[in-house]
Amino acid sequence: MKLVPLGDRVILKQLIAEETTKSGIVLPGQNKEKPQQAEVVAVGPGGMIDGKEVKMEVKVGDNVIYSKYAGTDVKIEEEEFIIVKQSDILAVIQ
Amino acid sequence: MKLVPLGDRVILKQLIAEETTKSGIVLPGQNKEKPQQAEVVAVGPGGMIDGKEVKMEVKVGDNVIYSKYAGTDVKIEEEEFIIVKQSDILAVIQ
Amino acid sequence: MKLVPLGDRVILKQLIAEETTKSGIVLPGQNKEKPQQAEVVAVGPGGMIDGKEVKMEVKVGDNVIYSKYAGTDVKIEEEEFIIVKQSDILAVIQ
Amino acid sequence: MKLVPLGDRVILKQLIAEETTKSGIVLPGQNKEKPQQAEVVAVGPGGMIDGKEVKMEVKVGDNVIYSKYAGTDVKIEEEEFIIVKQSDILAVIQ
Amino acid sequence: MKLVPLGDRVILKQLIAEETTKSGIVLPGQNKEKPQQAEVVAVGPGGMIDGKEVKMEVKVGDNVIYSKYAGTDVKIEEEEFIIVKQSDILAVIQ
Amino acid sequence: MKLVPLGDRVILKQLIAEETTKSGIVLPGQNKEKPQQAEVVAVGPGGMIDGKEVKMEVKVGDNVIYSKYAGTDVKIEEEEFIIVKQSDILAVIQ
Amino acid sequence: MKLVPLGDRVILKQLIAEETTKSGIVLPGQNKEKPQQAEVVAVGPGGMIDGKEVKMEVKVGDNVIYSKYAGTDVKIEEEEFIIVKQSDILAVIQ
Repeated sequence: MKLVPLGDRVILKQLIAEETTKSGIVLPGQNKEKPQQAEVVAVGPGGMIDGKEVKMEVKVGDNVIYSKYAGTDVKIEEEEFIIVKQSDILAVIQ
Repeated sequence: MKLVPLGDRVILKQLIAEETTKSGIVLPGQNKEKPQQAEVVAVGPGGMIDGKEVKMEVKVGDNVIYSKYAGTDVKIEEEEFIIVKQSDILAVIQ
Repeated sequence: MKLVPLGDRVILKQLIAEETTKSGIVLPGQNKEKPQQAEVVAVGPGGMIDGKEVKMEVKVGDNVIYSKYAGTDVKIEEEEFIIVKQSDILAVIQ
Repeated sequence: MKLVPLGDRVILKQLIAEETTKSGIVLPGQNKEKPQQAEVVAVGPGGMIDGKEVKMEVKVGDNVIYSKYAGTDVKIEEEEFIIVKQSDILAVIQ
Repeated sequence: MKLVPLGDRVILKQLIAEETTKSGIVLPGQNKEKPQQAEVVAVGPGGMIDGKEVKMEVKVGDNVIYSKYAGTDVKIEEEEFIIVKQSDILAVIQ
Repeated sequence: MKLVPLGDRVILKQLIAEETTKSGIVLPGQNKEKPQQAEVVAVGPGGMIDGKEVKMEVKVGDNVIYSKYAGTDVKIEEEEFIIVKQSDILAVIQ
Repeated sequence: MKLVPLGDRVILKQLIAEETTKSGIVLPGQNKEKPQQAEVVAVGPGGMIDGKEVKMEVKVGDNVIYSKYAGTDVKIEEEEFIIVKQSDILAVIQ
C-alpha cells in the first residue's frame, strides 16, 4: 500500500524534534506555530494548483522543516504520516 | 437514482478508517482536521471553476484520503455519501 | 408573478429530504452544513460574475443537492423558494 | 433632492414583505439573512468596479429581492431608502 | 494648511444628518453601519490602486452619502475631517 | 546607523498630534482607528509588491496622516520610528 | 548541518533588541506586533511564489527589522533561528 499525493501536496514522516531528544525537555508552547522536522516520503506532481503553476522543489528523502498546523495527520497500516502542501515546507536541512 | 457531481466535485463513499478497525479504538481528536479514507463513486466534469481551469485527477474506484471538514454528507435512498471538491482530496492510496 | 434570478443565481423549491421521509426521524445536526434536495424552478443567465465567466449547468426541472447555509429563503404568494448561486449546487440527482 | 448612486450601487425603496401582509405574522428569524422585497428607485452607472467590469442589469421600477444585511439604510427628507450593490440583488419579480 | 489625499482617498466634512436635525431625535443603532452625509473637500488623484485603475468620480463640493465605519477621523487646526476611500462613498445627493 | 525600508514601506517619525497640543486634552477613543501625524524619514524603492506595481508618492520630509494600527513601532538608538506601507498613508499635509 | 530556505523565505538569527540592552528595561506590550532585529543567515531562491514573481532583496549578513509574529522559530543543534517570508522584513539597518 502506497500513498500518492495529489497536486502540490507532499507526504512527510515525522522525525523526533531536536530540542526534545537532546535536552529531554519539551519547551512549553509560546503561543506560536510549532516548527517540525520530517522526512519527505512522497511528492505530488505539482502543476496548475488553484490557477497557479507550482513546481515541486523538494524530493523524496529530503529532511525538511514544516509548519505543523498546516498539515493533516494520516495513519495507514499502523504508520503515521503528515500530508502538507509544499508551501507549508519552510526549509530543507542539509 | 444516481448522483452526478457538478464542476470539480467528487462523490465519495466512506471506508472504515484503518486506525479504528485494527485497534478497535478511536484516538481522541487532537484539535486537528480528521483525515478520512473513502472510495470515489462519481467525478464531476471539471472545467472552469471560479475562473480557473480544473482538470480532474481522480477516477471512479480510487481509494483516497480527504479532509473530512471540507465535505458535505448526503443520504440518498438509505446510502450515505460525501461530496467534496477535488482540492479536498489529499492523496490516492495504491 | 414570477421570480427571475440575476447572474449565476438559481431558484430552488425544496423537496422533502430522503432521510426524513423514509425513517420519519431527523438525525441531529453533526456540526456540519446540512445538504438539501430541491427542484430547480428558475435559472439565471450566467455570464460575467465578479469578473469571471460562469456558464449555467443546471436547468429547470433538475433535482439537485445544495448546501443549505449558502441559500436565501424567499416567500412569494405563500410559496417558499430558496435562491442560491450555482456554485452552491453540489450535484444533480438522476 | 435626488440620490445618484456611484459605481454598481442601486437605491431601493422597501416594499412590505409578502409573508407579513398576507398572514399578518412575521416568522421569527431562523439564524439566516432575511430576504427583502424592494423597488429600484435609482441605478448607478456600473463600469469598472474593483478592477472588474460590471454591467447594470436592473432598471428603475423593477421589483427585486435583495439580501438585507448587505444594504445601507439612508433617510433623506423623511423618506427611507436602502443602498445596495447590484450583486446583493438576488432576483427580479415579474 | 491643506490636506492632500493620496490615491483613491477623499476628504469629507461631515454635515448634520437629516434624521437628527428634523426630528431632534437620533434613532438607536439597528446593528447596521450608519450612513452619513458629508461634503467633499478634497479628492485624491486616483490611478493604480492595489493593482487596479481607479477613476475619481466625485468632486470638491459634492454632497455625498458614505459608510461611516470605513472612514478615519482627522482633526487639523480645530477642524474635523473624515478620510475615506472613494469606494466607501455610496451616492451623491443632488 | 540608518533604516532602509524594503518594498513599499515608509519610515515615519511621529509628530505631536494637533488636537493634543492645542487643547491639552486627548479626546477619548471612539471605537475607531486613531489617525496620526508624522514626518516621512525614509521611503522604500516601491516596485512589484505582491504582484502589483507600486509607485512611491511620498518623499522624505513630507508631513503625513497615517492609520496608526497598520504601523510597526521601532526603536533604534533611543529614537522611535513607525514603519508603514505607503497604502497606510492617508494624506499629505501642506 | 545547514538550513536551506524554500521560495521567498529567509532564515534569521535574532539580535538582542536595542531598547533592552541600552536601557535594561523592556517596554510592556502595547497591544501591537513587536518589531525585532535579526541577522540574515540564509536566503531562499525567490522565483514564482503563489503565482507572483518574488525577487530577493536581502542578503546574508544584513541586519534587518522584521515583524516577529509572522515568523516560525526553529531550533537546530542547540541554535535558534527564525524563518520568515521576505515580505515580513520591514527594513534593513545600515
